Amino acid sequence: MIGRLNHVAIAVPDLEAAAAQYRDTLGAKVNAPQHEPDHGVTVVFIELPNTKVELLYPLGDNSPIAGFLEKNPSGGIHHICYEVDDILAARDQLQASGARVLGTGEPKIGAHGKPVLFLHPKDFTGTLVELEQV
Amino acid sequence: MIGRLNHVAIAVPDLEAAAAQYRDTLGAKVNAPQHEPDHGVTVVFIELPNTKVELLYPLGDNSPIAGFLEKNPSGGIHHICYEVDDILAARDQLQASGARVLGTGEPKIGAHGKPVLFLHPKDFTGTLVELEQV
Repeated sequence: MIGRLNHVAIAVPDLEAAAAQYRDTLGAKVNAPQHEPDHGVTVVFIELPNTKVELLYPLGDNSPIAGFLEKNPSGGIHHICYEVDDILAARDQLQASGARVLGTGEPKIGAHGKPVLFLHPKDFTGTLVELEQV
Repeated sequence: MIGRLNHVAIAVPDLEAAAAQYRDTLGAKVNAPQHEPDHGVTVVFIELPNTKVELLYPLGDNSPIAGFLEKNPSGGIHHICYEVDDILAARDQLQASGARVLGTGEPKIGAHGKPVLFLHPKDFTGTLVELEQV
């Protein structure tokens, strides 16, 4: 069911410093920040040859990563995103296995303009898993 | 300097349950457990089309992931591994930038039989980063 690892998302307390570190110290290809008000984050995409790293920084008053950064003031890996072909079929199969889907259970349009769902971390090795239909 | 994302490592409290979840619920290609006594872990490799996920479970009395699982009893993402061409050049460049390398600073032979180093999480967005020479 799952395909490629679409991205690893890392929440950071200082977006400029983190982007500079990946660009200047690690020599990675780092894109300009993108503000995603619908998702409450500003995102910097880091392009690796086989996948992406996304640096996340809170945007607005109700950012979904504000609480994470309170608990992890140095930052940390927030979630991983796997690609699926059919997100509704994936959801139904996961729910049938007992896995919980966060929110209403209906896919939302994610930061890449594609339908996404998040799975409950307690059901997946303590890891917040995003599924994105590609 | 960094190349591909070699793997995402997830520490888990129940290796069999986590492997079954990736295999049966997510439909991923999951390999048999490998005991790595030199590294204090048993590893299950999950092969995705573009990278790997590694499930880690403590092996022996001094496992480097035992403390992590005490703090994160449901499991969680333990580290991410980036590939580099020349690990000594990478180390020297990182240290010149002020990044700390864990341990003696000399590369060790990692679970894949290749030289690896770990960077201090406080210097990299709260994220434990492994560099592997490929």
